[in-house]
Amino acid sequence: MTESSSGTNSGGLGEFGLISRLTELSAGADLANSESVLTGIGDDAAVVATPAGNQLLTTDAIVDGVHFRSVDERWYGIGWKCAVSNLSDIAAMGGVPDHALVTLGVPPGASVDTYDEFYSGMNDAFTEFGGRIVGGDVVSSPTMFVNLALTGHPSVDANGQPTWLERSTARVGDLVCVTGPLGGSAGGLEVLLSGDTNPSGQTLVDRHYHPTPRIELGNRLVKSGVRCAMDVSDGLVGDLEKLAKLSNVGIRINMADVPLPAELIFMFGNSAIELALSGGEDYELVFTSPESIVKELQRENVSEIIVIGNVNEGGIPDGKVSVVDQNGANYEPIRKGWDHLNG
Amino acid sequence: MTESSSGTNSGGLGEFGLISRLTELSAGADLANSESVLTGIGDDAAVVATPAGNQLLTTDAIVDGVHFRSVDERWYGIGWKCAVSNLSDIAAMGGVPDHALVTLGVPPGASVDTYDEFYSGMNDAFTEFGGRIVGGDVVSSPTMFVNLALTGHPSVDANGQPTWLERSTARVGDLVCVTGPLGGSAGGLEVLLSGDTNPSGQTLVDRHYHPTPRIELGNRLVKSGVRCAMDVSDGLVGDLEKLAKLSNVGIRINMADVPLPAELIFMFGNSAIELALSGGEDYELVFTSPESIVKELQRENVSEIIVIGNVNEGGIPDGKVSVVDQNGANYEPIRKGWDHLNG
Repeated sequence: MTESSSGTNSGGLGEFGLISRLTELSAGADLANSESVLTGIGDDAAVVATPAGNQLLTTDAIVDGVHFRSVDERWYGIGWKCAVSNLSDIAAMGGVPDHALVTLGVPPGASVDTYDEFYSGMNDAFTEFGGRIVGGDVVSSPTMFVNLALTGHPSVDANGQPTWLERSTARVGDLVCVTGPLGGSAGGLEVLLSGDTNPSGQTLVDRHYHPTPRIELGNRLVKSGVRCAMDVSDGLVGDLEKLAKLSNVGIRINMADVPLPAELIFMFGNSAIELALSGGEDYELVFTSPESIVKELQRENVSEIIVIGNVNEGGIPDGKVSVVDQNGANYEPIRKGWDHLNG
Repeated sequence: MTESSSGTNSGGLGEFGLISRLTELSAGADLANSESVLTGIGDDAAVVATPAGNQLLTTDAIVDGVHFRSVDERWYGIGWKCAVSNLSDIAAMGGVPDHALVTLGVPPGASVDTYDEFYSGMNDAFTEFGGRIVGGDVVSSPTMFVNLALTGHPSVDANGQPTWLERSTARVGDLVCVTGPLGGSAGGLEVLLSGDTNPSGQTLVDRHYHPTPRIELGNRLVKSGVRCAMDVSDGLVGDLEKLAKLSNVGIRINMADVPLPAELIFMFGNSAIELALSGGEDYELVFTSPESIVKELQRENVSEIIVIGNVNEGGIPDGKVSVVDQNGANYEPIRKGWDHLNG
């Protein structure tokens, strides 16, 4: 939700600073006091109590020149990704998607064909993973943008109780796991921008335009007793720093255990790990959980679950994430934070 | 929801045509077949069945240079209006607002002060009329925009059953009523653009920047047995044409009965009626109902309710709205459709 901001075209750090302050502003002092807000700004989705039950709410916008380039004309893929970025927020809460509202900012000269393909991509993602477009708004805008708002509801734990995953519930001793290889989307974007036509490169481009939101797996995590998760949308290290801060813990990542797509290693060699540590938009889940639950999940043949580190310190108010290499030496990732267009 | 589109800066009719086709596109053939969608695209808000009960969903976006001008720096008013346009969609369904998600498209050089005032305006509107911001997204964008998505729930009828107002339920013989004077917001915008500082003009400017969403009144209508309503956001005649089409009826408006703010007559003389017939953003409700219900509402001292016409024909697939003057002669409003910036 609020974290998927990008400052690509807006003057660098100053703009990131503003966005960070705006995020605080929108949190609002009175939000914490609201009985109806069970999990508020700062998590992947808000959890609210409605007169009829608990609900998940999330929204994500994409802007031409910032999150996608209209000149690429990959409308189906852009629509798919737009739906997936919202579906992934619901997945990160272990929830089930329900209803979507789409706002289109339409620039002069836009064609219906463009939006036909865009809607196909969006609708196919909703058909495959759940959720449905039920309304929206169409406005003129000098800059093309799309905003999606998505509702959902919590899935249930082993006792049939509605429960959700949060970022603030990591505990010392938890293992840190991801649900699939990382860096493929960022690698795909680099391939796309370079114009390379190598087939391995195209596999990565496909990962960029056709990511999978981990809805089912998120529900499975809830059922298994996992309570802390988020999705990897802005880059593993940067995203985990947010989770570590909300949980007041230190996290240690073993660089050698971070899973990489074979094509990423083939195309980028030693740089592959950087793309995996800092590249965004893979939409895998990262979660923390006691070892017993992780073992149980792996025993049940949930093969996507890969342990990449552990929660090794508590009582760290600002949170901390360290990455160590095979020799146990600290490793400083070259790039922190995911710049959606420039990889 | 989908109807609040504006083509001001985007090449005129061609763009309006595109927006109209996009609205159809987003309706989608499969939407009608969805069990969970009780009232879909085309009404002020969607009504959906969720696992936990029926819900209202709406969204509205505003774009710099199209719906507001950042150079005017009326941030509090822009924030207030942004909240009200969404609250009014819930009011038009006779619903109760619950939770809002705000997406900010932030241009280079934007200041936190700007957004401080903007949030004050939004939050004050939610505090006064219900609803609460629970999350959002902040993205960089060359063009400043704000998208608001708002959830709500139906209010109850006289038997305590959750019920809502629709556009498709007007019946021959119904009276057509509005909940307050029209044209003030459009007049205020004209005053603003002209730079006039006359106090009567400033009263209209205040109507433009500080409209009231008719939440309580919408709930009252539901309780009284009214079933057909919408809000006046794009202009009385143009809005009623949408209602007439969805209800397959003909509507006759008596021009002399359309209520006008005294300041509008003072400032615009004979043009006041044009602003009332075609000007948008007054956010009053317009509804149709059998005379007995209207009389009962007026007897209960709901003084805002003014009869302006009646539903005089059925079986009109495309709908029809005619305006007649004091002599019963047809009157053709000069301007149809509300152009948010240019009045």
